[in-house]
Amino acid sequence: MQEIQPSDDPLIVAGRTYQSRLLVGTGKYKDLEQTRRAVEASGAEIITVAIRRTNIGQDPNEPNLLETLPPEKYTYLPNTAGCYTAEDAVRTCRLARELLDGHNLVKLEVLGDEKTLFPDIIQTLEAAETLIRDGFNVMVYTNDDPIIAKRFEEMGCVAVMPLAAPIGSGLGIRNPYNILTIVENASVPILVDAGVGTASDAAIALELGCDGVLMNTAIAGAQDPVLMASAMKKAIEAGREAYRAGRIPRKRFASASSPIDGTFF
Amino acid sequence: MQEIQPSDDPLIVAGRTYQSRLLVGTGKYKDLEQTRRAVEASGAEIITVAIRRTNIGQDPNEPNLLETLPPEKYTYLPNTAGCYTAEDAVRTCRLARELLDGHNLVKLEVLGDEKTLFPDIIQTLEAAETLIRDGFNVMVYTNDDPIIAKRFEEMGCVAVMPLAAPIGSGLGIRNPYNILTIVENASVPILVDAGVGTASDAAIALELGCDGVLMNTAIAGAQDPVLMASAMKKAIEAGREAYRAGRIPRKRFASASSPIDGTFF
Amino acid sequence: MQEIQPSDDPLIVAGRTYQSRLLVGTGKYKDLEQTRRAVEASGAEIITVAIRRTNIGQDPNEPNLLETLPPEKYTYLPNTAGCYTAEDAVRTCRLARELLDGHNLVKLEVLGDEKTLFPDIIQTLEAAETLIRDGFNVMVYTNDDPIIAKRFEEMGCVAVMPLAAPIGSGLGIRNPYNILTIVENASVPILVDAGVGTASDAAIALELGCDGVLMNTAIAGAQDPVLMASAMKKAIEAGREAYRAGRIPRKRFASASSPIDGTFF
Amino acid sequence: MQEIQPSDDPLIVAGRTYQSRLLVGTGKYKDLEQTRRAVEASGAEIITVAIRRTNIGQDPNEPNLLETLPPEKYTYLPNTAGCYTAEDAVRTCRLARELLDGHNLVKLEVLGDEKTLFPDIIQTLEAAETLIRDGFNVMVYTNDDPIIAKRFEEMGCVAVMPLAAPIGSGLGIRNPYNILTIVENASVPILVDAGVGTASDAAIALELGCDGVLMNTAIAGAQDPVLMASAMKKAIEAGREAYRAGRIPRKRFASASSPIDGTFF
Repeated sequence: MQEIQPSDDPLIVAGRTYQSRLLVGTGKYKDLEQTRRAVEASGAEIITVAIRRTNIGQDPNEPNLLETLPPEKYTYLPNTAGCYTAEDAVRTCRLARELLDGHNLVKLEVLGDEKTLFPDIIQTLEAAETLIRDGFNVMVYTNDDPIIAKRFEEMGCVAVMPLAAPIGSGLGIRNPYNILTIVENASVPILVDAGVGTASDAAIALELGCDGVLMNTAIAGAQDPVLMASAMKKAIEAGREAYRAGRIPRKRFASASSPIDGTFF
Repeated sequence: MQEIQPSDDPLIVAGRTYQSRLLVGTGKYKDLEQTRRAVEASGAEIITVAIRRTNIGQDPNEPNLLETLPPEKYTYLPNTAGCYTAEDAVRTCRLARELLDGHNLVKLEVLGDEKTLFPDIIQTLEAAETLIRDGFNVMVYTNDDPIIAKRFEEMGCVAVMPLAAPIGSGLGIRNPYNILTIVENASVPILVDAGVGTASDAAIALELGCDGVLMNTAIAGAQDPVLMASAMKKAIEAGREAYRAGRIPRKRFASASSPIDGTFF
Repeated sequence: MQEIQPSDDPLIVAGRTYQSRLLVGTGKYKDLEQTRRAVEASGAEIITVAIRRTNIGQDPNEPNLLETLPPEKYTYLPNTAGCYTAEDAVRTCRLARELLDGHNLVKLEVLGDEKTLFPDIIQTLEAAETLIRDGFNVMVYTNDDPIIAKRFEEMGCVAVMPLAAPIGSGLGIRNPYNILTIVENASVPILVDAGVGTASDAAIALELGCDGVLMNTAIAGAQDPVLMASAMKKAIEAGREAYRAGRIPRKRFASASSPIDGTFF
Repeated sequence: MQEIQPSDDPLIVAGRTYQSRLLVGTGKYKDLEQTRRAVEASGAEIITVAIRRTNIGQDPNEPNLLETLPPEKYTYLPNTAGCYTAEDAVRTCRLARELLDGHNLVKLEVLGDEKTLFPDIIQTLEAAETLIRDGFNVMVYTNDDPIIAKRFEEMGCVAVMPLAAPIGSGLGIRNPYNILTIVENASVPILVDAGVGTASDAAIALELGCDGVLMNTAIAGAQDPVLMASAMKKAIEAGREAYRAGRIPRKRFASASSPIDGTFF
């Protein structure tokens, strides 16, 4: 077996090539300087921005994220965090496109309620349809239902982003089988979005075959965000390499002649 | 909060300082060249050698591991793999000391049966006592019973190495609570030994507060051992950094006012 | 505390009262005699029938389930197993209503694909709307998304039936948090449908607060279906009683002053 | 396949036959009346008594458990709860034998520390040896190490009782693989002791092939102990019947041709 070099293994989203499979949010840091240092430590090349909460030019008198994290260096991924209807989400994406000079890559999320922050799939489908018709490249936040995930792919979304667990919960991948099924059926990138709590959670996503992970709270909410960003960078790389390296099968004992079947936990 | 540099965070075993928290075995590779490349990719500074199966000078006509992996560069950790009695294990350690010119750091394992490869705790206790009296620095493979782990520490073992799961099973940490309890009670290094299957398993051990991980099959048995060695290196670093960075609490929802209590899975 | 009697604790669906919280399927048995004996051993009062696969009068020359399991004794719950579109499902429910003399309680399921047997939520929503408008009492098979579950309730479904795991998988409840969230938000009965493999899986559903469980393969596919039916009857009662009895909190140790928070697995 | 009747399936311990596989403790209830009602609801035939904490005649002026739960009806199983040395445990067993007129069935437990209540295996081995030599029938509380469990069996213990989780924790079976390995290797009854929290935990023990379960806190500490006792009775029966009935294999999908191997969670 010929060994594969890391450089042979890029993430391709909407036609662009990235070396990093970690996408990070830019909110919840104590200041823009911490944001910048954490983003740098994470190695992320795609950064997501909550258009409703982050100044990227809406207010000319406030600090502008574009100055801290220059768009020449990072791919901006405007998101619709805080939107609860298709209409709101579409409007927010259009605003982002204006502010970013015609940039049409967006992360669509339409939430179902304020308690769980689960997506509202019906509204999300409606918004995705409109946005795709309108020329956007839509990366879409969804639940972990494989049929729904496939629907988004078939509509023309450029990436499908199932949740690992509720936004901000830090619970890690609650239903790995569902994520695995989504991955197995997909022909667009599958990126886990929401619910990652620590480094191993991120590694597991990649080991399952996901193409990447997007996170915000797990880094920004850690006691040392910059160190956690570094941990996540390494975890993502570790998970991807482990996936490509082909892990040993799980067996009850080394002496067992076959992998575990029937009884397992 | 002042951020901590990786260089401030060494592993100290038997008075020596190591930058790497990954200890690797040297068996089961297709040839010594693959062994060398995998060990290098792992970044390990301590390598364990099954004295009964590896030529470190017993047979002058065969390739000698000491030439492939020079003892000036690596700390050799002779182990007693394949021993089923205290007597055998003690004899094997003494042979190792002779072959390695007085080197007295050893990994003691005394197995209970050939099917499960679980340790025989009674024989291990007996062997550990003899070896410590005999001047060895004993790193000891044990089950995940916190009371037993503490016993080994109190006897004078320099590191305690509970299993994650049966040797060669690849099942990862089966009982994280036990490992956590061992870690919380310990004042010597706790290194998970045996049972790791993939990168996230290793990260989890470090996130629990373990001081390091020893593995062999997970790397040597992977389809691409050198790439898996690299994955493990990164996973160990990721897990350790995540541990030090202070992860976010687990909550059912971001909106929950307190971490999960009562209902969890 | 006054103790509650089992007789005080009925399941109420669509205005009717049942003592049993176990709903069973009638397919996949070796013959009608085994079906009858398993159903009796299960104690079920509601039995579901795949209209497309079971003769309840469509073919006057074949054995008729209504003679084996008399509708005076059992509430028949016709289901739309095998339907992949809203249109098919609606047509099947109407056929069932004719065959059962105006009976309008149905279990709606519209599948997304033949491999996973996951529901197609979009088609299911469409069918549910039509059926409710048409006077049916709809019990609906759905994924475990809490927002979708609430939607079905708000539309007027008389019970919501999230999957534990894929139909026929025997994997048990894959995502207990989602099921718990559905239960906490519901004001109609929540019945776990699909994925139960053994007795403890059924007990867990009730311990989470579900109002009941529907199963078929777990009983019909067991080596001894009649004994498994008895096991499931007891497991459902055990789970319900445990739920009502108020379990002890989970703690790492008896000596811990508070339930587990933060670190758990 | 001929179906097996429940009456064909007794538990045999130390030569005596029992219909119930649930063993219960008698402590921690609010009064003897509640103890009696919970024990009756549990259907237990073997009841365990902490000799150091329960009056079975030590104090003639206090209520005597033997009057509430007559030894003609229940098999008394004196236990050594609260003993931290072999010597204490042996002395306690001898006291029990005197108080119970030569009764020699005992449950041996020697604890390692007050925080975790884990067994001290070394002291337990020593005490077991003495007690067996002294004519006792020893049921022994141990950790979940399969090698240790086998050792107790080989010494002549009449039953081996591995913990599910720490005493009083309510965490359920933490390491089902270990319990399964113990069961597979055993030729004496294996009873899970300690750590059960709710009904499904008990069912799982039986589904794994355990011969029974002993519990106290899970019942006595529930909000309604008598109802929980009933739940546990049913859960134990459910788990046993499910074990005997032969469950369906776990598969990712009904359409999968083989049980799960390789990827599972």
